[in-house]
Amino acid sequence: MLSLPLILEAASSIHGAIRRTPLEESPILSELVGVPVWLKLENEQITGSFKARGALFSLLKAKEEGLSHVATCSAGNHGKGVAWAASRLGMTATIFVPSGVDSTKYAGMVGSGADVRKSEFPGYDDTERWAKNESIRLKIPFISAFDDYRVMAANGGTVAMEIFEELPSLEMLVLPVGGGGLSAGAAFFMKEKKPDCQVVVCQHEGSPAFQRSIEAGKPVLEMPAIETLASGLEGGFGRLTFEVLKERYDRIELISEAEIRKAMVWTIENHQLIIEGSSAVTIAACLRPDFDKPRGPIVLVVSGRNVAAATIVQVLHGDRF
Amino acid sequence: MLSLPLILEAASSIHGAIRRTPLEESPILSELVGVPVWLKLENEQITGSFKARGALFSLLKAKEEGLSHVATCSAGNHGKGVAWAASRLGMTATIFVPSGVDSTKYAGMVGSGADVRKSEFPGYDDTERWAKNESIRLKIPFISAFDDYRVMAANGGTVAMEIFEELPSLEMLVLPVGGGGLSAGAAFFMKEKKPDCQVVVCQHEGSPAFQRSIEAGKPVLEMPAIETLASGLEGGFGRLTFEVLKERYDRIELISEAEIRKAMVWTIENHQLIIEGSSAVTIAACLRPDFDKPRGPIVLVVSGRNVAAATIVQVLHGDRF
Repeated sequence: MLSLPLILEAASSIHGAIRRTPLEESPILSELVGVPVWLKLENEQITGSFKARGALFSLLKAKEEGLSHVATCSAGNHGKGVAWAASRLGMTATIFVPSGVDSTKYAGMVGSGADVRKSEFPGYDDTERWAKNESIRLKIPFISAFDDYRVMAANGGTVAMEIFEELPSLEMLVLPVGGGGLSAGAAFFMKEKKPDCQVVVCQHEGSPAFQRSIEAGKPVLEMPAIETLASGLEGGFGRLTFEVLKERYDRIELISEAEIRKAMVWTIENHQLIIEGSSAVTIAACLRPDFDKPRGPIVLVVSGRNVAAATIVQVLHGDRF
Repeated sequence: MLSLPLILEAASSIHGAIRRTPLEESPILSELVGVPVWLKLENEQITGSFKARGALFSLLKAKEEGLSHVATCSAGNHGKGVAWAASRLGMTATIFVPSGVDSTKYAGMVGSGADVRKSEFPGYDDTERWAKNESIRLKIPFISAFDDYRVMAANGGTVAMEIFEELPSLEMLVLPVGGGGLSAGAAFFMKEKKPDCQVVVCQHEGSPAFQRSIEAGKPVLEMPAIETLASGLEGGFGRLTFEVLKERYDRIELISEAEIRKAMVWTIENHQLIIEGSSAVTIAACLRPDFDKPRGPIVLVVSGRNVAAATIVQVLHGDRF
C-alpha cells in the first residue's frame, strides 16, 4: 500500500544519490497569474527527470530482495532512470522501448550500459504488453514505470514532500499526468499533509486516460497511440494509481498539442530552460487566461528536460520564428 | 586584497540566498576525453549565471557601509545579478548596458525593478567609460562587474571552493575568461589549496584581452568591440584581476566563434541544457581532438544560460540543421 511511512522510506533511501531540485518562483508567471507561482525544477534532476527517484528506490528494494537483473518498459525517462540506477547499483537492466522512442532518451539509456530493445510498436501500451511477455519468456522480473506503490512513493511522494517542506503555504499543486506514478504519489502526500491544498492534474487532450477512467468509474488501461511532443503522457492509466488518485484530485485540465508547443517555447524564452512536452502541460495550464487560481501560492511541477535537439528546432519554428 | 578569508566571508555571506549548483560528471565528455570530466553547472544558478554571487556579496557590503543606491555597467549577467540582489536587499540599482544587450538579459533586469539605461555604444568598453562618467554626474557609487576583490572572491572564489569540497581529486580547472572576475577568483582559490591543479583559461580568439595583457606585461584595459555569441567575454581585462591571474594560470585556450556555436549545439544535443556563448568556451576547449589533458579529473565551469530564444534558433540552424 501507499503510505506516508513508505514515502519517508523512499526519501531516506534515495537521499544523497538524488538531487534536491530547486523550488524557484517564476516572477513572470506570478505577474501573469496574479498570485505567486513557483516551479519545482525536476528538469534539473539527475538523468533529466523525476523518474530517477522511482527507478532508484525500486532497484534498491529489488537488490535487497536478492535480484540482480530487472526488466522494464519505458517511453524514455523511466528507462533512463532505471539504466542510471542499475549502473549505480551494479545491476543489469533490460529496457523495452517503443519504436518511436526519442533519440536522446535512447542514447542516454544505451550510454548507461543498459540492454535496450526496441519494439515494433510506436505506442506505449502495445510495447508494454509485448515487454511483459518478453520478460516472462526471458524470466526477468518486470518493474512497472508507474503502477507500483514504490514508484508512486518515490516519484510523486518525495517530490511533494520537498515542495511542502520549502513552501508549506502552497494552495495549489499542478501536476502532469501520464500513467499516474508522479501524480498519484504527489496527490497522496499533499492530501495527507494539507487536505485543502488543491491538486490540479494536467493531461493531453488527445490521450486523457485519467479523465476517461473517472467517467468509466474504473481504470482505462489502454488508449490508442497518438503522435505528440508529450510522449510521457501518452497511453493508459494504472490500476493502482487510479485507486489512489481518483479521490485525491480537485480538477483535470486537458491541454492541446498547440498549447504544449507554445509552453515549451515560452519556457525557453522566459526561463532559458529546455523542458520536454510532458513537462510543458503544467505551464500551459497556468498560461491560460481563464486559469482558475487559488488565493495563495501555486506550485507547478516541471518534470523533465529530455528532448532531442531536432525537436527543439521544430518546436521553435512551428511557433513564432 | 584577495585572500582566503575574504573568499570564506563571501561564501558565508551569500550562503542560503545563492544556490549550491550541481557538480555533475558528463559521461559523454569523459568518454571523449578519456579522463573523468565534470561540469559545474552555474547555468542553474539564481538569475541564470554565477554573477549573482558577486553581485549579492558586493551589495551586502555596500549596504553594511550605509549605501542604498548603486550603479554598475554590464553586458547582461552582472546587471541581472545586481538587479536581483538590489531587489532582495531593498536597494536601488542603476544599470548601464551596451546598446546591443541581449533582449532576455535586458528583460530580466527590468523585471527585477532596476533602473536600466542603454548606452549608444554596442561594445562593453565604450559603455563602461560612459557609465562611469554618468554615475559620477549622478553621484551614485559605481560597482565594477569584475575588477574588484569582493567580486573576485564571491564570483570565482566561492565557485572554486564548492568544486574543491566535492571533488578534491580534480587535476584541471577550465574557466571562461572575460574581464577576469570569475577566473582570477577561482584560480586564486585553487592555487592556494592545490597548487598542482592546472588552471586553463579560455578566451574568445577575437577578444583575447588576457593573452594580450600577458604579452604586454600589463593589463590591456580595452579591446575593439566584436560581434559574438559570447558577449560576456568581449572587452578589456581588469587591473586587479590581471595582478591575480597572471601568476595563477597554466594555459590559455583561444576559442573561435565557430567552436562556440558548435559547443552550444553540442550541449543542447547531449545534455539538453541551454548555455550562453560565454559558457560554451570551456566545453569547446574540451571538444578539441588535441585537448591537452591531465591524468585525473577535469572540471569545466559552465557559467550561465541567459540567451534569447531567437539566438538559440539561429545557433541551431547555423550548424547542422
